[in-house]
Amino acid sequence: MKKFVPITDEKFSEFCEHLRSKKVDAYLIGDFENSRNSSLRFFSGHPEDAMLVILSSGKRILIPWDVIMAAKVSEVEEIVDLNKKGGSYYAALSSILKENLGDRFTLELQSSVGYFEYKHLKNYIKPAKVTVFDKPENSGDHFIYRLRRQKSPGEIKLLEKACNITNKIINDLEIFLKKNRKNPDFREIDVSLFVERKALEYGGDAVSFETIVANPDRSWSIHTHPRAGKGKLAKPGLSLVDFGVTYQGYKSDVTVSFALGKLTKEQEKMRDTVEKAKIEAVKLIKPGVFAHEIAAAADKVIKDADLFMPHSLGHGIGLDVHDPGRIASKPSDKKMLKKFKPLKLEPGMVFTVEPGVYHTKHGGCRLEDDVLVTEKSCRVLTKTRFMRI
Amino acid sequence: MKKFVPITDEKFSEFCEHLRSKKVDAYLIGDFENSRNSSLRFFSGHPEDAMLVILSSGKRILIPWDVIMAAKVSEVEEIVDLNKKGGSYYAALSSILKENLGDRFTLELQSSVGYFEYKHLKNYIKPAKVTVFDKPENSGDHFIYRLRRQKSPGEIKLLEKACNITNKIINDLEIFLKKNRKNPDFREIDVSLFVERKALEYGGDAVSFETIVANPDRSWSIHTHPRAGKGKLAKPGLSLVDFGVTYQGYKSDVTVSFALGKLTKEQEKMRDTVEKAKIEAVKLIKPGVFAHEIAAAADKVIKDADLFMPHSLGHGIGLDVHDPGRIASKPSDKKMLKKFKPLKLEPGMVFTVEPGVYHTKHGGCRLEDDVLVTEKSCRVLTKTRFMRI
Repeated sequence: MKKFVPITDEKFSEFCEHLRSKKVDAYLIGDFENSRNSSLRFFSGHPEDAMLVILSSGKRILIPWDVIMAAKVSEVEEIVDLNKKGGSYYAALSSILKENLGDRFTLELQSSVGYFEYKHLKNYIKPAKVTVFDKPENSGDHFIYRLRRQKSPGEIKLLEKACNITNKIINDLEIFLKKNRKNPDFREIDVSLFVERKALEYGGDAVSFETIVANPDRSWSIHTHPRAGKGKLAKPGLSLVDFGVTYQGYKSDVTVSFALGKLTKEQEKMRDTVEKAKIEAVKLIKPGVFAHEIAAAADKVIKDADLFMPHSLGHGIGLDVHDPGRIASKPSDKKMLKKFKPLKLEPGMVFTVEPGVYHTKHGGCRLEDDVLVTEKSCRVLTKTRFMRI
Repeated sequence: MKKFVPITDEKFSEFCEHLRSKKVDAYLIGDFENSRNSSLRFFSGHPEDAMLVILSSGKRILIPWDVIMAAKVSEVEEIVDLNKKGGSYYAALSSILKENLGDRFTLELQSSVGYFEYKHLKNYIKPAKVTVFDKPENSGDHFIYRLRRQKSPGEIKLLEKACNITNKIINDLEIFLKKNRKNPDFREIDVSLFVERKALEYGGDAVSFETIVANPDRSWSIHTHPRAGKGKLAKPGLSLVDFGVTYQGYKSDVTVSFALGKLTKEQEKMRDTVEKAKIEAVKLIKPGVFAHEIAAAADKVIKDADLFMPHSLGHGIGLDVHDPGRIASKPSDKKMLKKFKPLKLEPGMVFTVEPGVYHTKHGGCRLEDDVLVTEKSCRVLTKTRFMRI
């Protein structure tokens, strides 16, 4: 692994300046199994399983689970071996905070922090203060969301690379599907292993999530479970493949739908509606437009066809498959609407557009592309399509 | 997918009785992307992406993201379509709580709940009360940990099935590795795709986590990142494969180490130490023994060889790869030691035993088996070994 820290020096200075303006001395980021947090990698280059302390003075201190890996891949001011500092994350954390800041300081936690972890840490490091900001405008994580949402040119290059690999795989996949259209032994798992192998062969790190392959018997499911099975693909009806590629940590996320044989009228309507919804949504994408307006355009197409989409239209992508930022209609619930904060598109944002409709009998159809907001409009980075095989 | 709810009727009654004794009217479990929680499946059979409300009266109400899937696979008293109840989880939740319990009731949240989610829900459902119990003996999740830690006969059957498939794969893997021992193009990814395909062919749902394959150049890493890459395997030194199989939701987790050619003295010591540590740990496993005593036995073997293990010896397995329960030595830090709660082994517990040692130059070696605590001693369910290829 090469050393690469996604955050730019400029953004990092901005963030430390923000901490100082809120009188926060240290900011804590943790990434662990069951609570993944790509902001760790964003700030340090270290991919996973570590605590990172960011001092408002600009010093980054990493407490990794795997200290050998940290030395090889992270780019921080200090790496601490937790086995030499009390043998636990908490012990190491409290000891380095004391060394750097003395007894009295303010440590900010992310708003996603567990209620118990908050209480435990509060007790652990007293008399120092532990803070979780209620108001987004004060909190470090909202500041980070903003920094992560608008990708830097360096990040965009990596995302484009992930999307280019994805496009090659889409082309290969179409050939692979056509080749096997009459193969009675051709299964969902064959497609998922094909995608995985290709992702690596074209220079990706890996697939960005477990590939979803749904044959006509289970394409009614938004996310199949298990993701890919023994279901036969050489049968009439709607099938889909939802996959992505990771390139140096940056992720693509696409869905292609395909069909063998003649579709029913209802299935044709589903396909046409999804195609139209994607086109109408993409047309609107440019700086200054609100995310919920884009979602509303797709929702209208789907509603006009008497169909229903049970999920939101899209989400940010970047270091996470689900990066900060959602492309969803305004909430219908009054209490939720009161809390609703519209998201205005800005150049450098990258997100998915993925209209989908699902029916117990007719199956499901979804098309998902990754779209970059440019200075004046947008660029669709991926080339998904409905395939007749 | 067949309908199968892991929790037994007896355990479910016990849990509702517990809630009533703590004056809790409803208990909330949520499983979402980035905060997976297998207790959802344990109580409802629904695999993912849903909220589950358990009323102390014994009624389970599921609010799924994918309502078509819920109808097909879950086994609960009621399924609620959130799109018909305000369009959001919170709106649907508050509406069903009101319908079932009126305005005044106590809702318990899991102790892992986010600090913000806790505050938000508190505000959302007032004047009803939201509780997170501080003391483990009062909290629902500690009760659940206990119920999940000691597997029922039905759960043990599924775990045994997952382990049997795993053992077949271990045998196949040895043949596959030997066949390719002189193949210069043989890569980590070839092994991970092989394991994945086999897991499905032998009747598993999928692999239980992304297969880790580390060639001698990067076996110093506890968990390689990316998990499997283009690293060539036909080279001298220590390599390892860490993988698992899911069978109807239940997971195995094993590691085999292997080597091609002659090992250095230091590498031989690493392998011998890991083998011995596993044997010494397994010898001690029986009901009544404490988890930390088992970990201490392995630690002693490793320390006596002047080596060091940077992770704990093992963890529970079941619906999660990391199920409740850890096999770790007592914490060395005083504050952590004060909070330490020893875990006494009981029949029906299943956990991994996975001693490992790692070195920047010499590479890494780990052997990991899954062990069931029986009435009088234990049974090692998997057959990992060090392989000379």
